[in-house]
Amino acid sequence: MSRVFNFSAGPAVLPEPVLRRAAAEMLDWNGSGMSVMEMSHRGKEFIAIHAEAEALLRELLGIPGNYKVLFMQGGAIGENAIVPMNLIGRTGRADYVSTGDWSERSLAEARKFGTVNVAATSQDTNFTRIPARDTWRLDPGAAYVHVCSNETIRGVQYHWTPDTAGVPLVADMSSDILSRPIDVSRYGLIYAGAQKNMGPSGLTVVIVRDDLLGHALPITPSAFDYRLQAEHDSMYNTPPTYAIYVAGLVLRHVKDLGGLPAVEQHNRAKAKLLYDFLDQSRFFRNEVALQDRSLMNIPFHLKDTALDAAFLKGAQDRGMVQLKGHRISGGMRASIYNAMPIEGVQALVKYMQEFEREHG
Amino acid sequence: MSRVFNFSAGPAVLPEPVLRRAAAEMLDWNGSGMSVMEMSHRGKEFIAIHAEAEALLRELLGIPGNYKVLFMQGGAIGENAIVPMNLIGRTGRADYVSTGDWSERSLAEARKFGTVNVAATSQDTNFTRIPARDTWRLDPGAAYVHVCSNETIRGVQYHWTPDTAGVPLVADMSSDILSRPIDVSRYGLIYAGAQKNMGPSGLTVVIVRDDLLGHALPITPSAFDYRLQAEHDSMYNTPPTYAIYVAGLVLRHVKDLGGLPAVEQHNRAKAKLLYDFLDQSRFFRNEVALQDRSLMNIPFHLKDTALDAAFLKGAQDRGMVQLKGHRISGGMRASIYNAMPIEGVQALVKYMQEFEREHG
Repeated sequence: MSRVFNFSAGPAVLPEPVLRRAAAEMLDWNGSGMSVMEMSHRGKEFIAIHAEAEALLRELLGIPGNYKVLFMQGGAIGENAIVPMNLIGRTGRADYVSTGDWSERSLAEARKFGTVNVAATSQDTNFTRIPARDTWRLDPGAAYVHVCSNETIRGVQYHWTPDTAGVPLVADMSSDILSRPIDVSRYGLIYAGAQKNMGPSGLTVVIVRDDLLGHALPITPSAFDYRLQAEHDSMYNTPPTYAIYVAGLVLRHVKDLGGLPAVEQHNRAKAKLLYDFLDQSRFFRNEVALQDRSLMNIPFHLKDTALDAAFLKGAQDRGMVQLKGHRISGGMRASIYNAMPIEGVQALVKYMQEFEREHG
Repeated sequence: MSRVFNFSAGPAVLPEPVLRRAAAEMLDWNGSGMSVMEMSHRGKEFIAIHAEAEALLRELLGIPGNYKVLFMQGGAIGENAIVPMNLIGRTGRADYVSTGDWSERSLAEARKFGTVNVAATSQDTNFTRIPARDTWRLDPGAAYVHVCSNETIRGVQYHWTPDTAGVPLVADMSSDILSRPIDVSRYGLIYAGAQKNMGPSGLTVVIVRDDLLGHALPITPSAFDYRLQAEHDSMYNTPPTYAIYVAGLVLRHVKDLGGLPAVEQHNRAKAKLLYDFLDQSRFFRNEVALQDRSLMNIPFHLKDTALDAAFLKGAQDRGMVQLKGHRISGGMRASIYNAMPIEGVQALVKYMQEFEREHG
């Protein structure tokens, strides 16, 4: 067996010790005589697994006691609708800040359920930056302000937490949750698909402040009603049990590494390696404003797009996969989530140096 | 490692060869150098896994070419809302046949989106039978007629396919899909949570006839819009990739066993063993009408409820778990899905005989 360096934007690389443990426990979890996949979600074994995953997430992110943690389904694209279904009813209006293709999808979905105000957008610069806070036109009567903390396609990321003057801040953190410490108390609601830094796809984590529960529109499906799920410990319907188990293993691994401060340091070192190379290269370029560059997803272009296929082929031959950029942006993209080892980024930079020497 | 006999109503027992293969492939699927959990859903490896799972499902169920197969999220409780969101808009009305607690939840959810007519119900007999077809009061203007093919809590199951005079028949088959051959062409739409006969929780399969696509209400979330998902091969959002992979392994296993006719024969033999014992017992009883008894979930009561705890304890000591009945019905319940070996039912009957001798 030879493992590759997997630069996929998600589902994405997972820590190898997590996969080894999942394999070892597949037929018999902890002497139960069952796979976690086979367990009733109401049995004592799974309830313990679920509780541990939640406790680890609370510990790592420092989630205050007045926030609920929900394990749901539907991914961030599902949540784009589930958030307004649950929250917009309070005033009928919401503010959205658009920083890329994921923000655009979020706000398009919200328009089905209320009035959306685009408080700021970086569309005029092709989504290569985060609009400065003093340019935002916020509505004090908005039910919430929505941001996407990291845009995977163009590779822009917030490196500051917006002040929204008391209006609840809602963040889609699908692609950078657990990559660095955050102050949860600054947010009303955080949601994230698990398949970048937390585990397999099919699990969505929602962290929601108590006072935002109970405002769901009448058409909200019960399975997606935050209050109902909060009242039933995320078991109003059968949760994605195996995905929660794997997420728990990932969270335990993150804790063992030293928690989010250690993870952030590792992520900064990896990103610096690649950005430093890009900044001195005359062949490869990244177009994002310096202060808004993502530590998770680093898109780059070759000087000559005719060489894109050769670049990807050479990477594949060297055991580096999924470097092709999103179809919207073209070019290349290296997604270097928590579980990407620094050796993967070192191998990529070495290959880019060689490629530039040969073709530059 | 000692495996138990797991009578859980879902998530439920899976075939051991499937679990062994999943464990063996956990770090490296088919020489890809990646776990299936780590694969981009848009990469060639996962697309092949996804396509094989769909092809096997089509082959096993004999799904006609004018039906789409969708791999979705949210489980049957999510789908209870997603079905009317997508289908009720055509006329604004739907017929529901209520045969138990799951039917009741389905129709309560549908009332959020249109007018629900309860065409028939067996509530008067405490949901111990399926109402005869000639008692149904169907609305010719209904957008669809909804049934639940197997009710897990009380253990009643359709052993016939209702004629709905041209109105599309929609069936929640969560708990008996793949347990026997069916004629898909008699249905407009079939949905099923995977966690009984198909794989892990977190995956919902929807089989929908082409002409029913495109009627979604404007508030339907994009992630749950059948037409959008059909147009994007269930990849409008990131699908639950690992659950689809495990479902594919289960489907391959079912095919290797001889397909659904062989599976049905096995299921009938298992159910007969337990029902024959119950019918001659003076200590245990099942209350369901003979012709409507479920082959999947067999609830039974002890003559003396004071002995329930002792019965469960003895079962646990003998490696038989999750026999406690649903809190709604009380008593016991043996869920004997496809992957329950006949040895599990034999062990249960043997224990029940002993228990009756001792306490009867």
